[in-house]
This record gives sequence, C-alpha cells and structure tokens, in this order.
Amino acid sequence: MVQDKSKQPAFVLVRPQMGENIGAAARAMWNFGLDRMRVVAPRDGWPNEKAVAMSSGAGRLLDEALLSDDLEGAVGDCTYVMATTARPRDMTKTVFTPEAAMAEAASRIADGQRVAILFGPERAGLENEDIAQANAIISVPVNPEFPSLNLGQCVLLCSYEWMRASATAVPVQEALAGTEWANGEEIAHLARHYEDRMEEAGFFFPEHKAASMKINLRNLWSRLPLTRADVQMLHGMLRQIVRWKDKS
Amino acid sequence: MVQDKSKQPAFVLVRPQMGENIGAAARAMWNFGLDRMRVVAPRDGWPNEKAVAMSSGAGRLLDEALLSDDLEGAVGDCTYVMATTARPRDMTKTVFTPEAAMAEAASRIADGQRVAILFGPERAGLENEDIAQANAIISVPVNPEFPSLNLGQCVLLCSYEWMRASATAVPVQEALAGTEWANGEEIAHLARHYEDRMEEAGFFFPEHKAASMKINLRNLWSRLPLTRADVQMLHGMLRQIVRWKDKS
Repeated sequence: MVQDKSKQPAFVLVRPQMGENIGAAARAMWNFGLDRMRVVAPRDGWPNEKAVAMSSGAGRLLDEALLSDDLEGAVGDCTYVMATTARPRDMTKTVFTPEAAMAEAASRIADGQRVAILFGPERAGLENEDIAQANAIISVPVNPEFPSLNLGQCVLLCSYEWMRASATAVPVQEALAGTEWANGEEIAHLARHYEDRMEEAGFFFPEHKAASMKINLRNLWSRLPLTRADVQMLHGMLRQIVRWKDKS
Repeated sequence: MVQDKSKQPAFVLVRPQMGENIGAAARAMWNFGLDRMRVVAPRDGWPNEKAVAMSSGAGRLLDEALLSDDLEGAVGDCTYVMATTARPRDMTKTVFTPEAAMAEAASRIADGQRVAILFGPERAGLENEDIAQANAIISVPVNPEFPSLNLGQCVLLCSYEWMRASATAVPVQEALAGTEWANGEEIAHLARHYEDRMEEAGFFFPEHKAASMKINLRNLWSRLPLTRADVQMLHGMLRQIVRWKDKS
C-alpha cells in the first residue's frame, strides 16, 4: 500500500488557514498511503500546534512536509500540476474528475514524471493566479445545491482515488474466498433429509399439492448459496427438533 | 443530482456518539445529494444540538431523520442491508469495496428494492450482532498501517461512490424482476421464530456456545436471498413440525 516516495503525487496545501484542517489533511493522505505533503505560506506559521494535535498517527507527514513561501517554490520540481477547484473557472484547461485525475497522475508518475495536486485555502479556494500555474483542474462533482466540501474532505477523496488508481487490483469478496460451498451431493442430501422429515410431520398437505410443494422446497435449497457449515447447521436443527418431538 | 427519496439508499448511523460526527455525516451525504438518514439510539439523545450546529446547510436531513431504538426498527422495511466495517470479520458475507457496494445498491434500487447502509459508533464500530442483520459488508481498502477513517469520512466516501454509481445504474437480474424479496422485518421475524423454537428444542447447547450459535443462525437468514414465498414456507415447515411434536 505505501508508495515509494518518488512514485506518489505531492499534495500541496496552498495558504491553509486552520491548523485542524492541515492535520485532517495529513490523516486523510496517510489513510491511503500518501505521505508527501507540501505546505505553502500557512496562515498561522509553521510548525502548527493544532495541526500536530489533529494529525495524530500521521504527524510524520507534517514533520517531513516541504514548506515554502510561494506556490512556485512548492511545485518547481513538478512536471505536471493539477489544481482542485469547487466552482468552474473560465480557463481553457482540462477538467478532471478525481478518478480521472488520479488515473492521469498514476500514468504520468509511472512514466517518471513528478506530479503535484493543489488544494486551496478553506474559505475562498485557489486564486486564479494559482490555477494559472496548473496544467489541469480537478473538480469533484457534488450536489449543486450544496457544494460545500472542506479541505480535509477534498484531500480525502483525492487520496482515496489515488489509492484506487495506483492499486493493481483491489480484491473484492475477500471474505468469501476460501469459503467451503456445499456441493450438489450435500445439497441433495439436505433436501432429502428435510423432505423425509416434513413428510413424516404431515407438511405436504393437501395431497394434490404435495408434489409441487416438494419441488418448491427442493428449489429453495438449490437456489440458496449454502456453505458446508450452513448445511451442517440445517441438518443439526432438524435432528434436534426430532429429538425434541421424540422426548415429548 | 438530488434523488427521488424512494430511489436512494438510507444511511443508518448506529449508536453514534458525538453530535459533531452526526452533523458531519449529514453534510457529507447532502454534498452528494443523499438525504435519507436514519439514526439508531444516539448516545446523547435526539435532537442533538451539536449535530445541528455542525450540519449547517444540511440540517434538514437531521429534522427528517428516522429515529429508532434498535437496528431492527431502523431497517425493517429494507430488503438489502450492507454494513460498513474497518476490520475483517469472520463471517460468510460478501465484502464489497465502496464502489462495488454502491453499484450493487444502485442496481437493487433500480429493481425496486429498499437498501440500507449501516455505519457503526465512532470508537468500536458495529457489533457482530449488528452485522448479523446485514446481507453484505462494505470495507474501505485503506493503508493497513493507518486504517483510521472516522464516521464522517466513511459516510463521505460511500456518498461519493453512491453519486458515481447512481449516474450509471442499470437494473440487473432481469430474470428475477418481479420477485418479491422478503424485507428486513420479515427476515427478523423468521429468525426469531426459528431461534425461539430451537431454544425450546434444546438446540443451543452447550451453553457457552449458545450466543455464537444464535449469531450463526441469524447470519444464515440475513445472508440468504429469501423471497416472501420462501419465508412463508420456512415458517410453515417449522409450525408443522411443532404440531407433529405436540401430537406425539
């Protein structure tokens, strides 16, 4: 999960205001294995105590953050820069979704490029002068009635998309791998067990419906995704209920 | 962007602790056009002032939130429930990424089903008893060295993926279209019926294993894709077998 430093984009916080948000950004990055933070002209100076307090567990990102006075100093070594913006800007630049942006970043980084992602100050976002230094724009498609993502949330979504873009394959259904599914013979045995006992119990009644009831019951067992453990439990329940009957 | 109410999953906060996190969850949902929140047994009562303060702009979600005392009450009308968990659980349930989970949700909702997503309390997450009521699990693939997503972040990522999935959802399982799936209340009723009778029959033995046997049995019912007709048949079988016992 953790990337080689040269194989990651740098996340650049431009003139961040609240220390809490810087700390939250560090945590969001490290949640997805990113640890190259850069900070441009933080309003309350550097280091920032509130940022450190909020970053618990990800404090190393702040210790190692590259601090600079202006954006140019922060991205001077980068060959491709993307700027996050909330509102549309009248600029002739490619506008990426976070997903497309991180795919682009991963592909450029794989080619040996250095990529930076810019995040603006909490209140106003990036200035047009900042965006002018970017090659492309990242815009999160939010509810137009409520486009209020904060800095930490924007960093979180981009970090998450970075992880998705850079991971070779995210295993889905891990918990089901190794599950021992019941085979056809075991299901047939279970079906017979229930059919026999239910027959004794007088369940298949009235008689002219018995055949279709049996088919419904067989269909149930064969349609359900049963494991060996499920089948054992279902056998056990039926055996126990017959013991109960026999004792009464 | 804003969804018809019946065309969204419900996001269910289970025993949330901090009002601030409830408010942040409301904002995260509304950022992506979701407004069906449900709240189960909030630690600090309801309504919660801190939640309201934090939710600015998304307060309507709290006003309209469905409040209930227990999880069963919160998801009784739902036919498919997914539980978010941080750590792996040894349960035979499908584990989805947020992306796959929201694709599944969108597809089921397009088929007319009601879907709920469960989010656990901040500190400990969902209990195994909660997860036993879910059909599947959602796990965010995070940095294993730092898997520290908080409630608001987890809600944000799921909301974001919902927005992505709902833009492209197409109903699947056409062959099963028109099938009347059992809802959560019906499954819970079935589970109780079997648990009660098996208790009387002395199935949950030895005593120190009884609790885990009960959870296994509940997990079985919630994991299986049962229709209303299946549930009726399973009730009928059990009732008949009890009559059989009573007659002997």
